[in-house]
Amino acid sequence: MIQTPYLLFLGDAPDQLAAKVAQGIKDWRPENAVGQFRMPGCGADLGITDMTLEEARAAGAQTLVIGVANRGGYISKAWKEVLVAALRMGFDIASGLHNLLRDEDELMAAARVSGRTLFDVRIPSVAYPIANGKKRTGKRCLAIGTDCSVGKMYTGLAMDAEMQKRGMKSTFRPTGQTGILITGGGVPLDAVIADFMAGAVEYLTPDNDPDHWDHIEGQGSLFHVSYSGVTMALIHGGQPDALILAHEPTRTHMRGLPDYDLPSLETLRDTALPIARVANPACQVVGVSINSQHLSEDEALAYMAEVEKRMGLPTVDTFRQGAARLVDALDAV
Amino acid sequence: MIQTPYLLFLGDAPDQLAAKVAQGIKDWRPENAVGQFRMPGCGADLGITDMTLEEARAAGAQTLVIGVANRGGYISKAWKEVLVAALRMGFDIASGLHNLLRDEDELMAAARVSGRTLFDVRIPSVAYPIANGKKRTGKRCLAIGTDCSVGKMYTGLAMDAEMQKRGMKSTFRPTGQTGILITGGGVPLDAVIADFMAGAVEYLTPDNDPDHWDHIEGQGSLFHVSYSGVTMALIHGGQPDALILAHEPTRTHMRGLPDYDLPSLETLRDTALPIARVANPACQVVGVSINSQHLSEDEALAYMAEVEKRMGLPTVDTFRQGAARLVDALDAV
Repeated sequence: MIQTPYLLFLGDAPDQLAAKVAQGIKDWRPENAVGQFRMPGCGADLGITDMTLEEARAAGAQTLVIGVANRGGYISKAWKEVLVAALRMGFDIASGLHNLLRDEDELMAAARVSGRTLFDVRIPSVAYPIANGKKRTGKRCLAIGTDCSVGKMYTGLAMDAEMQKRGMKSTFRPTGQTGILITGGGVPLDAVIADFMAGAVEYLTPDNDPDHWDHIEGQGSLFHVSYSGVTMALIHGGQPDALILAHEPTRTHMRGLPDYDLPSLETLRDTALPIARVANPACQVVGVSINSQHLSEDEALAYMAEVEKRMGLPTVDTFRQGAARLVDALDAV
Repeated sequence: MIQTPYLLFLGDAPDQLAAKVAQGIKDWRPENAVGQFRMPGCGADLGITDMTLEEARAAGAQTLVIGVANRGGYISKAWKEVLVAALRMGFDIASGLHNLLRDEDELMAAARVSGRTLFDVRIPSVAYPIANGKKRTGKRCLAIGTDCSVGKMYTGLAMDAEMQKRGMKSTFRPTGQTGILITGGGVPLDAVIADFMAGAVEYLTPDNDPDHWDHIEGQGSLFHVSYSGVTMALIHGGQPDALILAHEPTRTHMRGLPDYDLPSLETLRDTALPIARVANPACQVVGVSINSQHLSEDEALAYMAEVEKRMGLPTVDTFRQGAARLVDALDAV
């Protein structure tokens, strides 16, 4: 686990979009962030306190989290100066960048001297077991998509937040680097060795109280040929009691695959449910989560009303409407 | 690619079963094996010429293949003496053992000095791409199982052999260590990083002549929760034109999963075909391959006749009956 609270490093982010990891932390775990660190020319602002490294340490920050994508895919000299100073000052550093902190000699050296830890959250740090398929106690919910990047992580975080608000027992279980940085732990499933994928998901969602819900972060899609194996392992390792169907209605083809159409929500349901019931015969599809960001409010509401009628399932955009109706549906499982 | 021909190292194999990799090479690619190397106490015998290292080199052997499982899971001192001598004599060494040749300092040192290569075929040696899903030329056949270890590799090898015999264009495409050692190349799919599984299968089965068949070695099962993600990636990366259903009729539960029943052949067909058609809308289920080793000849024939009638598909045990009828079915695709 990454030690909280964090100082969120925005570096020289060109714009707000580049800082989406930091934005996710601020949106979903504001208590994890004591402040933000911005360098000259930074175009992003989370609207939280700007702090120097010293101020953040004094405020209790344990870890500097790189909350921004790096330009050009390398860690610049300007960044490195800040990161080395942070290590010397007692921060750990956590990063979901493609290029690894551990591959930077200066950072490794500074971490060694200071006895600090570099967390490259894209890389598994655990030797996961092979899945054993044993039924686990507690309940699990998984969002599965008609495509990649249709709002599965957001849906899981929103459902977890709603359950927390209601005083229900609930944990968000990240399977990708953004989710891992938001919560401080999880499994970077897309970087796990094939044979251990389902076992990694079992490890991520252990036995729990009978009335506890794990919200497992979805990945890929059963219909996305590049990543469907990862989705399959999530379904069989996760043993979900409940599936949420996630969809982005303006997508004209599968992400990155111009020759592939999206499946209908019905096809997704009818494909996924028998597969999920291999691992959990009681699994049900309980709701639909629509990412309607490219529709107007009126279009979105009309579209969701139509889907709700067609599918007979509560259908919401958790960003526009919150996750209350999905949580109501889970609560009935 | 591993250089052929091989000298098959049987070491101190306690019995024939321990030498199943060597047996597979001798059965399927006898032209790849100049002879066998047995140590004192070896209980296995392939019925091919026993050779010293010197004799094998003189006969043209390029690679010493470890064709046997190691007792206790470590490479013994007695083995190491032979392997070091082989490296010094100009052999490469290839192994599918869990513990890696490259982790043995003495072997690494000897390989360096002699300029030889150590092939640990369980470990990917290529940075596979992410799958792009583009339709490839040529045809592909994949055996999918109701469970793991039901004869999928054997089926693919037998179909390839039958096509070769008929002068058809055909290649067996290994996805596991035994198949890789038999043919000298392939993808160790269960050791590939999750995000690159389907891409590795695309890499394994590139564009080919329109009348060429790739027989892709199957792995796992869509219904085996430990490995189903690997199977999924095979189906979506492989874009099969034809599926063969593989089954072992005496299995009482999924291998290693006592609480999981096997699916019926009908359920396997109905689950797999829509999934396969995501990547290849023309995909068909063309036959059934039964591993009837635990049935008598009479029981086996009666069982297969019943399955053939029920499924309306040619149903054979390729070990007992050869793959001719399956190849006839492929030829009609």
